[in-house]
Amino acid sequence: MTDIQRPEARSPRGFQDRRGSDLSAERRIIARVSEVYERWGFEGLETPAFEYVDALGKFLPDTDRPNEGVLALEDDDDQWIALRYDHTAPLARFAAQNWETLPKPYRRYAYGPVWRNEKPGPGRLRQFWQCDADTVGSDRPEADAEILAMGVEGLLATGLTPDQAVIRVSNRKLFDGLFDAGGITDTHQRLTALRAIDKFDRLGIEGVRLLLGEGRLDESGDYTKGANLPSNLIGGVETFLASVSNSEASRSEVLDTIANIGAGLGEAGDAALKELAAIDRALNAMGVAQDAVKFDPTIVRGLEYYTGTVFEAELLLETKDEKGRPIRFGSIGGGGRYDDLVARFTGQTIPATGFSFGVSRLAAALRSAGRSGPQTRGPVVVIVFSDDDMQHYLDAVSELRNAGVAAELYLGRAGMKAQFKYADRRGAPAAVILGGDEIAAGEVTIKDLDAGRAQAAAISNNEEWKAARPGQMKVARSALVSTIKSIIE
Amino acid sequence: MTDIQRPEARSPRGFQDRRGSDLSAERRIIARVSEVYERWGFEGLETPAFEYVDALGKFLPDTDRPNEGVLALEDDDDQWIALRYDHTAPLARFAAQNWETLPKPYRRYAYGPVWRNEKPGPGRLRQFWQCDADTVGSDRPEADAEILAMGVEGLLATGLTPDQAVIRVSNRKLFDGLFDAGGITDTHQRLTALRAIDKFDRLGIEGVRLLLGEGRLDESGDYTKGANLPSNLIGGVETFLASVSNSEASRSEVLDTIANIGAGLGEAGDAALKELAAIDRALNAMGVAQDAVKFDPTIVRGLEYYTGTVFEAELLLETKDEKGRPIRFGSIGGGGRYDDLVARFTGQTIPATGFSFGVSRLAAALRSAGRSGPQTRGPVVVIVFSDDDMQHYLDAVSELRNAGVAAELYLGRAGMKAQFKYADRRGAPAAVILGGDEIAAGEVTIKDLDAGRAQAAAISNNEEWKAARPGQMKVARSALVSTIKSIIE
Repeated sequence: MTDIQRPEARSPRGFQDRRGSDLSAERRIIARVSEVYERWGFEGLETPAFEYVDALGKFLPDTDRPNEGVLALEDDDDQWIALRYDHTAPLARFAAQNWETLPKPYRRYAYGPVWRNEKPGPGRLRQFWQCDADTVGSDRPEADAEILAMGVEGLLATGLTPDQAVIRVSNRKLFDGLFDAGGITDTHQRLTALRAIDKFDRLGIEGVRLLLGEGRLDESGDYTKGANLPSNLIGGVETFLASVSNSEASRSEVLDTIANIGAGLGEAGDAALKELAAIDRALNAMGVAQDAVKFDPTIVRGLEYYTGTVFEAELLLETKDEKGRPIRFGSIGGGGRYDDLVARFTGQTIPATGFSFGVSRLAAALRSAGRSGPQTRGPVVVIVFSDDDMQHYLDAVSELRNAGVAAELYLGRAGMKAQFKYADRRGAPAAVILGGDEIAAGEVTIKDLDAGRAQAAAISNNEEWKAARPGQMKVARSALVSTIKSIIE
Repeated sequence: MTDIQRPEARSPRGFQDRRGSDLSAERRIIARVSEVYERWGFEGLETPAFEYVDALGKFLPDTDRPNEGVLALEDDDDQWIALRYDHTAPLARFAAQNWETLPKPYRRYAYGPVWRNEKPGPGRLRQFWQCDADTVGSDRPEADAEILAMGVEGLLATGLTPDQAVIRVSNRKLFDGLFDAGGITDTHQRLTALRAIDKFDRLGIEGVRLLLGEGRLDESGDYTKGANLPSNLIGGVETFLASVSNSEASRSEVLDTIANIGAGLGEAGDAALKELAAIDRALNAMGVAQDAVKFDPTIVRGLEYYTGTVFEAELLLETKDEKGRPIRFGSIGGGGRYDDLVARFTGQTIPATGFSFGVSRLAAALRSAGRSGPQTRGPVVVIVFSDDDMQHYLDAVSELRNAGVAAELYLGRAGMKAQFKYADRRGAPAAVILGGDEIAAGEVTIKDLDAGRAQAAAISNNEEWKAARPGQMKVARSALVSTIKSIIE
């Protein structure tokens, strides 16, 4: 391969490697949330990473990006295929394709990476994991309530306590009502306005006002075009947002507040109120606490395909960065109803609702909150002294593995000191020493590396060290497995 | 969304959806093989789906495909990125990028989809799963032997019996010796010749002869250019292949056979023999059976980056298609040494060896052999009669879930008959019936659906049916969970 010029060893911008404890923390989230989904009767589905661009649709907020936010390429037969940007659009394609043979309602869960053609920047990843559950073919409010109750159970399963997360629920039709009253009919203008309102929690009322009007210039100097709503309608939206943003109110209190705003919301608003009231009844019947699922009409979500009810999971857990500054993770999941997404293919309306966990973001949040679970331990390392004694080392390592203990033979060519350093780097609980003396005496020396570190810290000088041999014990060769197990357990 | 024209609901050619039992069978393979890898001391790593094209390198056999077999796209900053075609090339990039801080040798395992820009066709998938383990930074034969022994344990962990799979091992340098003797120095010509030999098991000696010569026209009418070796060298290769292809011989017998061919193999051949002999000693020391890992010099593998030792796992299990015709699955995994792959980046040679399970192919093989494990069961289904009794249904379903029983509330709007059909389609073990009478009497009717099917089969007419109510039992409401558990367990 001498003819190949030397490439730089780096991964593409916006993509990350994950290993060790970080990786197992993410896998733990997926395993625990999946366990909840299965217990609630959802069936696994794995669609391929690619969809035809037309099947995927263009529902992402960042329509200013190349290919409108997706990573796409042209197939041999000149058809464009793109990597999924979520698990919902592929589900709609799958459901439409297999509707006749699927059990109805179709309840499926899915996890895996999704890809977005994000503007590269700190913390902006172009590949991240989501873990979704959806019910396709049910218009029942119990379906939405179930997704919400399950989302709450999923959040707890990841290790959060009830006070550390909340799912906020609203219905986009509340704003449809306002837009109808304001004479806004253009769907694109409505969507732009909804996406402006979606930024309420981040930009506050001033930022939203600009985005509902002509537009907004952000700190980075990027200008976002606004929805150009008439000023009286902008005022109406502001009044609405102000009157409903009370995070302490119970679900029924929020519904009362909205009802008291009254006629301004029109038919669409009344429909939204009815749907939310039905979901509240189902949530109460399921015993879902008021502070676990709140109604918050400022929630709208950025994806285009939602048709009414929308969910957003927010982390209340206070997390800090390396410098101890508080981090706001905001949304760690979301979802809602997308009753028209399957109809894109079939023409037949099939109601659907679902929720998606932002696994990568949730893992990052738990990590910086020191809640990402136990550090992963390395294997027991069997030290190598002489190739002539290889048989003894191999026997020891296979004995340990057959006893279910993760173990390995050191396969490098470095000396004993470097091998102990290696065992440390692996996070090994113990090292197994089979020197010539031990082998001759039918014994084995085992070093408890955790105990060793602890004792070593208390030792002041080299002589003491040599005398103490921190954490080391010599036992009969036949006691290898039992001794190691007593150290690990 | 009325303005969107209707797309067709289909996944791109060469991509497949996976659900239900098929999906869980693949996940079972990954879970069991990963458990083996971890017990052998390998640490998880997940690299992103994309790599820069130059970092990925071009080592695939199908260089006639667009982008030489990879799916690639141009990034915003005009750099080409491509989806990984295996887990080895990204590992080399990762190891080169992090070598200073990694424990050495670095032992990692990885699983996930890989993508190939395959010529679409039956059974030719463009996304499939692999599950790899590699040791980077060890030139020890014990490292290769360990990978092989672990591969054997992995095959057994997937549910195969020892007689149903074998890993064949060889060393490419055997042919380097022949090529040296034949005066072939061009690396591309050597690679073309190796890839011709790689097809020996599929095309037989005649096919290989054509591909070592001018070229071969296959059934589909595609012409593959040959290696254009001189005829005497082709003869030499044929003699070699003929003399060594004896699947009954022990590892040491194969080495003797090769040794007896003698000088023809030259220095490279002698080196290959030494390496294979050392691996044989280590395999014996690890107690790896002769029929679990065989030496077979006809094995070469198609990927360019292998530098010497190569592995190939073959399924011996006889499998049949729907029409009962025997299917040949051939290779269900492979690997080998790639001592130059990290050096591509750093210039510093870092020896490496690894093995990859073809998870998707292995799952397909186990499936058609009826060895893919238990069918996945659906949840217990709680039947819905009247919205007024919703509270009773919800209480029942949450009681079951809290007891760890997968259960769901039927969320459609169809009648009782359709709900039982639904429960059947879900593969539900039982249905829970809470009619008005049951609720009033503090009872619940439970239908054991498996028993029901069995008894129903024995019933001849409708009257009998009504009388028998196959599989149904009425118990006290308080006995719901215990009765369901007795049906499931």
